[in-house]
Amino acid sequence: MSEQVIASYVIETSLALQRAAEVLAGEQSTGTFVRVERETDDVRTRFAAQVHELTELDPTGGNPLPGSVGDPAQRRRALLRLRFPLDNFGPSIPNLLTAVAGNLFEIKELAAVKLVDLDLPAPFVDRYQGPSFGIDGTRTLMSRPRGAMIGTIVKPSIGLSPAELADVVGELAGAGVDFIKDDELQGNGPSAPLTDRVRAVMPVLERHADRTGVKPMYAFNITDDIDLLERNHDLVVAAGGTCVMVCINMVGLAGLAALRRISRVPIHGHRAGFGAISRSDQVGIGFRAWQKLVRLSGADHLHTNGMSNKFYESDAEVLQSIAAVREPLLGLVPTVPVLSSGQWAGLAHATYSAVGTADLLVLAGGGIHGHPDGAAAGVESMRAAWESAERGESAQGALERSAALRRATERFGPVRV
Amino acid sequence: MSEQVIASYVIETSLALQRAAEVLAGEQSTGTFVRVERETDDVRTRFAAQVHELTELDPTGGNPLPGSVGDPAQRRRALLRLRFPLDNFGPSIPNLLTAVAGNLFEIKELAAVKLVDLDLPAPFVDRYQGPSFGIDGTRTLMSRPRGAMIGTIVKPSIGLSPAELADVVGELAGAGVDFIKDDELQGNGPSAPLTDRVRAVMPVLERHADRTGVKPMYAFNITDDIDLLERNHDLVVAAGGTCVMVCINMVGLAGLAALRRISRVPIHGHRAGFGAISRSDQVGIGFRAWQKLVRLSGADHLHTNGMSNKFYESDAEVLQSIAAVREPLLGLVPTVPVLSSGQWAGLAHATYSAVGTADLLVLAGGGIHGHPDGAAAGVESMRAAWESAERGESAQGALERSAALRRATERFGPVRV
Repeated sequence: MSEQVIASYVIETSLALQRAAEVLAGEQSTGTFVRVERETDDVRTRFAAQVHELTELDPTGGNPLPGSVGDPAQRRRALLRLRFPLDNFGPSIPNLLTAVAGNLFEIKELAAVKLVDLDLPAPFVDRYQGPSFGIDGTRTLMSRPRGAMIGTIVKPSIGLSPAELADVVGELAGAGVDFIKDDELQGNGPSAPLTDRVRAVMPVLERHADRTGVKPMYAFNITDDIDLLERNHDLVVAAGGTCVMVCINMVGLAGLAALRRISRVPIHGHRAGFGAISRSDQVGIGFRAWQKLVRLSGADHLHTNGMSNKFYESDAEVLQSIAAVREPLLGLVPTVPVLSSGQWAGLAHATYSAVGTADLLVLAGGGIHGHPDGAAAGVESMRAAWESAERGESAQGALERSAALRRATERFGPVRV
Repeated sequence: MSEQVIASYVIETSLALQRAAEVLAGEQSTGTFVRVERETDDVRTRFAAQVHELTELDPTGGNPLPGSVGDPAQRRRALLRLRFPLDNFGPSIPNLLTAVAGNLFEIKELAAVKLVDLDLPAPFVDRYQGPSFGIDGTRTLMSRPRGAMIGTIVKPSIGLSPAELADVVGELAGAGVDFIKDDELQGNGPSAPLTDRVRAVMPVLERHADRTGVKPMYAFNITDDIDLLERNHDLVVAAGGTCVMVCINMVGLAGLAALRRISRVPIHGHRAGFGAISRSDQVGIGFRAWQKLVRLSGADHLHTNGMSNKFYESDAEVLQSIAAVREPLLGLVPTVPVLSSGQWAGLAHATYSAVGTADLLVLAGGGIHGHPDGAAAGVESMRAAWESAERGESAQGALERSAALRRATERFGPVRV
């Protein structure tokens, strides 16, 4: 028998749950709206998706999806796990997605349909290798063997001249930052082409490395058309760069996998646009399912959001995302969770206590560049707070020990405990 | 001054509308959660996104997005048009998307945020050429100079042996079908590899062409990893195939644009998975905005759904989608709207009357294969109904003239008028 993929959905429907599950299974495998010639029982047996589990859940009171049919008073919610024969599509992420995340989102019998998890068999690893570098490879390249990896985003997001960018990078490197990234909005526009940024940044980092033996990792945003990804990557690597960044949803999972095949440095995976498929509770793809495909496709780093972030996700959701990325997956090299958005030094103790690991890349943009004493003090405050948390000291202890952290609280408010 | 992109959103917020618009504009251009060093007024003037229009709309009573903040009683709905300097990202669709459809979907100040339209300047056409074939090129290849292009999907979707597939294709070609496509679920799995399908289908079509001078167009689904798209395309073209199909959301817009650069035949764009970003009224990307990017990226054919479809969209929404695809766009060759899902001969008169053109590819899957007298009679019923509608005859007239149409009504119900 062929290997299987199990796709888990949260669905709502006004039909009988079993009937709705069968509509979904039929639409995504052998069926159409009428039974047709040659759709034999043998075809159904070999190729039809099967209901693996159907467990009723409590209703949430959310609006039904537009265009859903049936009596609203009859609406019920369930976890549905469907089993697909791998032979229907093979270990191809694009063709897998057509089966598990294709037309089904438009089914009118469903008042909610969200793909929340995927169980994938081993053949996917034979085709996609996952990260090349992951946590250990990233630590080696940035010379940070243990402890939280402290990073930042160039701010303002866009608008700096190459000379200003070089100044910012020099200041951050001097302050001992492990990682710097382009903002996701800094692509390859005429006002700041990638070539100019590479030319401005890399000599500063190389000189710093010559002096200190440490080259901070700079993630150049190389997001662009597929035929430019390799050229952009090569430009970065030729200049001594040690990381490339892509907006995963903009190059597509297929673009990420294509980059993985040629990349000689870690790939920093940004999740911009993920909210379009994930924020609704009623439709789309949840982080747990999505991050598996991202890791398989080869992201060495993946944004999970951070606690007390400026976006909509609760701490509980963020912690689930971080835990999901840290969960073993098909023997792949582990991807680094990237905590970002509204991060600053005062969140270190609460985050470390909740996550229980320092195998994290923690990015503070405004939290470093907006420090009252400038970016170098911002880096110092982050390092002091994380080292304090990691050695088991209280936040109060960190405040007593670090002037940079005390100054940060004047701008960003009290340390979170 | 740089050229501009205007992105139109429907938003909801409990903040003052102007304030929410500024949060969105800031997040997507120069801002972060605090003002930082070097974020000068000059930087803001040159790079900040600007509110171009803000028009209050009637509330819809939809649930606010999860995690949105503020007093629900204060919630208001508006059309927001933001103006972005093109220089921020350049005419690169992936980098454009990061600006207009990136982190903004996760903004907690927004209780709804859906990208509904995009106005793009001419430089995008210099980079992306749009369709190579479009309506005219497709008509020429399939020898159907005028009238609705009648097509079908191989059914059952998956599970046919190569010999069965050849039989189905021979029957359809003999019946005068213009177009046949693989189901979107038929990718390149081990049970029916693309190589085997090409080998089964093309000799049948070539023999038909030798006899009749007409080669029906067969859209082979070549959806797969990026590095396989060219190989798959070449396999089809080498065998005499005249069309390739991709699931746009699975290869990504970037994958579609990459295919466009090498394709020597029309690209049939399937929209599987589009519901994940579009079905919610509260978040994601609307068809009008999305189809512009799809056309620019090079889709010769694009699925719009059809009237009385089996999915959730109303006729009004479907008609808007068809009209959107038919609207001129930056001088591009026109893309063919593809009407699909639950289509059969009895919808021809209502559709033609509503759409006012026969420059359409109308696909009936079950509506052809499920005809009581088999697929050939299904094709005959479709052709008779569309030709009748196009020459201004009533549906009643078509019924009187065509036995195949009368028989179709026994299975699919009364003709829609």
